[in-house]
Amino acid sequence: MSAYSELKEECYAANLLLPEYKLIELAFGNVSVSDPRHGVFAIRPGNVDHKALRPDQMLVVDFDGQVIHGSLRPSADTATHQRLFQAFPDIRSIVHTHSRNAVAFAQAGRPIPCFGTTHADYFCGEIPVTRPISPEEVQNSYDHEIGNVIVERFKDLDPHKVKAVLVHGHAPFVWGSSGTEAVENAFALEVIAEIALKTLEVNSGASPIQQSLVDRHYQRKHGETV
Amino acid sequence: MSAYSELKEECYAANLLLPEYKLIELAFGNVSVSDPRHGVFAIRPGNVDHKALRPDQMLVVDFDGQVIHGSLRPSADTATHQRLFQAFPDIRSIVHTHSRNAVAFAQAGRPIPCFGTTHADYFCGEIPVTRPISPEEVQNSYDHEIGNVIVERFKDLDPHKVKAVLVHGHAPFVWGSSGTEAVENAFALEVIAEIALKTLEVNSGASPIQQSLVDRHYQRKHGETV
Amino acid sequence: MSAYSELKEECYAANLLLPEYKLIELAFGNVSVSDPRHGVFAIRPGNVDHKALRPDQMLVVDFDGQVIHGSLRPSADTATHQRLFQAFPDIRSIVHTHSRNAVAFAQAGRPIPCFGTTHADYFCGEIPVTRPISPEEVQNSYDHEIGNVIVERFKDLDPHKVKAVLVHGHAPFVWGSSGTEAVENAFALEVIAEIALKTLEVNSGASPIQQSLVDRHYQRKHGETV
Amino acid sequence: MSAYSELKEECYAANLLLPEYKLIELAFGNVSVSDPRHGVFAIRPGNVDHKALRPDQMLVVDFDGQVIHGSLRPSADTATHQRLFQAFPDIRSIVHTHSRNAVAFAQAGRPIPCFGTTHADYFCGEIPVTRPISPEEVQNSYDHEIGNVIVERFKDLDPHKVKAVLVHGHAPFVWGSSGTEAVENAFALEVIAEIALKTLEVNSGASPIQQSLVDRHYQRKHGETV
Repeated sequence: MSAYSELKEECYAANLLLPEYKLIELAFGNVSVSDPRHGVFAIRPGNVDHKALRPDQMLVVDFDGQVIHGSLRPSADTATHQRLFQAFPDIRSIVHTHSRNAVAFAQAGRPIPCFGTTHADYFCGEIPVTRPISPEEVQNSYDHEIGNVIVERFKDLDPHKVKAVLVHGHAPFVWGSSGTEAVENAFALEVIAEIALKTLEVNSGASPIQQSLVDRHYQRKHGETV
Repeated sequence: MSAYSELKEECYAANLLLPEYKLIELAFGNVSVSDPRHGVFAIRPGNVDHKALRPDQMLVVDFDGQVIHGSLRPSADTATHQRLFQAFPDIRSIVHTHSRNAVAFAQAGRPIPCFGTTHADYFCGEIPVTRPISPEEVQNSYDHEIGNVIVERFKDLDPHKVKAVLVHGHAPFVWGSSGTEAVENAFALEVIAEIALKTLEVNSGASPIQQSLVDRHYQRKHGETV
Repeated sequence: MSAYSELKEECYAANLLLPEYKLIELAFGNVSVSDPRHGVFAIRPGNVDHKALRPDQMLVVDFDGQVIHGSLRPSADTATHQRLFQAFPDIRSIVHTHSRNAVAFAQAGRPIPCFGTTHADYFCGEIPVTRPISPEEVQNSYDHEIGNVIVERFKDLDPHKVKAVLVHGHAPFVWGSSGTEAVENAFALEVIAEIALKTLEVNSGASPIQQSLVDRHYQRKHGETV
Repeated sequence: MSAYSELKEECYAANLLLPEYKLIELAFGNVSVSDPRHGVFAIRPGNVDHKALRPDQMLVVDFDGQVIHGSLRPSADTATHQRLFQAFPDIRSIVHTHSRNAVAFAQAGRPIPCFGTTHADYFCGEIPVTRPISPEEVQNSYDHEIGNVIVERFKDLDPHKVKAVLVHGHAPFVWGSSGTEAVENAFALEVIAEIALKTLEVNSGASPIQQSLVDRHYQRKHGETV
């Protein structure tokens, strides 16, 4: 019926997965899903209770940030999602959560080392953390600048291999090839963050696993040599 | 019907929210709600099981501590609530819990630094901790003195910006503009306490976020520049 | 009908409380209840699944350790319960669990300091830990010797004020004036153990609260000066 | 009816126990069950959702690794299970999980010391950790090589006394005399890993319990001197 109804459905369904994975905390947590051919993405409105969401309320925004469909106010994080889709047009779905263990690493300003195969099955290497955002960036288009520091952090990283980032002093953004995969990756990030924290508690000098093991596991799950 | 029935209803409903947020532990946890125009507040009785509470059992107490409505014995913490409403007449609702992570900071005698935006969305700066209560204060009107050490701690703090405090060796008191908001703030305090503890485990030298970022987030949620 | 049916009912009902409080872990967890006038206590059999327990299966054992009622094999811990009832005839109910945080302190060989009022509301001072059991004691009447090292540890302690103990390298024993109170105390012990562990994580040099505050809280809940 | 239907049923039933014990995390978690007389074991297929599993989908593989029954692709871990059954033909059931606390020790490269009787009731001594797998082993028959490093680690250990191992940088493998017992042991491992981690937090210099106490508890549960 309405334009982009499939996109809005996928976005709606992915948002409903967040409470199933216990990734909704307080007012935090949303998922966007893009249509890269048309350069647009769907995102939830900001001022609707999660339990009351309906598919037709999803907004559609183009990769330059113009709302092209929908009447409600988009989520406050929309400018960050937009900036990421603009820089990485073929990541299909972005999840933002404040999941507790991932936020702990973001607040500590520390990347999550790839300590084991659980991590490597989902993310091909350490989860990077951005630099702190500057006071000037806070004053300007803050949510857009969050996107900028993420893009800056990925200058030498491949967003198709490392599908998550920790915004310093804030929280994770995670992505994937569908709404469902992105949410599963956000859950995987929270699990590996918890295990990494416990790993450091057992052995504060724990080492990341060797790169060949990282690649082996990441390939097994994502590559063609299954 | 009865006097203060709306106030008692709001107080009752807010107390019912505590188990939903898992903020009831052992026998600890209660919420008061005030009517600042009349200088009174409603509070639950102390010797009724939480599950058996009824709205008509709520007591009404004036800001000087006189019970003006209700026949049951008020909660043991009533004198503390009274002292806080007396000192800060326009905070509308106070929650007292023994939530585990917040209590850990209270017992450690350490404030909860504002390590990230999750914290800043709810509390504009670190969560302060009172000085230890003195042996003399313990002997005197103990519950009233707990209120006094909180008021003393807020001499240079704005209770409208920092809506929570940790009583040294005891537990948190949290407030908000309604029963619902106060309970949500108490839950937010527990979440940020857990994340702060994990932040310190990842990086014992973690730094609070810059004040401009604190203000930006706190304003976004509470100010007029949304 | 049958002899001791009330005692067996109380014991059965208290055992059923364990899963409600999540104090059953693997195969660990049982409650005994005594009748001090007759010098006997009821305890569950050892080889019946917790979910299949029936009141009539409870055994009755006298304070010298003779089974005087019941045909099933008593729980393996029976000799420990017996030794405690023999030494402290007026504690009415004993709970043994392997709850995770309390066991962590037992395995660490460290008492749980009274870091705050949550602790003091239930236990009047630190939770003591026994000395390690000796190789000789392990070879002899092991379960009886566990009781002996507890009794030895309480030489200068009042079991009516400190209603719990950690057996070194093993787990807690907790007691109270009824099956219900003993189980609630076992739950309180687990809660304060978790908070104490977190307190130490926040501040490894945290101090116990002053004795006057311990007494004030313990009295408020247990004494006559409510 | 079909060959090996009992074996496949036991394997299927044991896999269903994993979510009951909360040992399924992300896509990780499976159980195999062997028939040592015929030198074969049953294992689940790798590409079927856990909730959609059916008994008839279980594959049967011989101890040399040949699939002798079933049409689906066996679980990716099959070669590891095969190597273990080959080396230890009389362990009847193997469980592989990525349970969080056990994985933390595996990632830290640290064995789990036998800190207490909870541990000793299930495992007769510390839970060993393998050496890291070499880059060459990663390139070769990786899953088979995981089996090899486990077998290497057990050169001087008795797999009937220590029924679990941590693969360095990876996760635990656990076994037992039936599918049900193996899963219970996997759960016990996760519990004791969590308690061991907390034990180290309370006292980083905590000592294992004496061997006579380990033996006493392990015998009580597993030996003939009950």
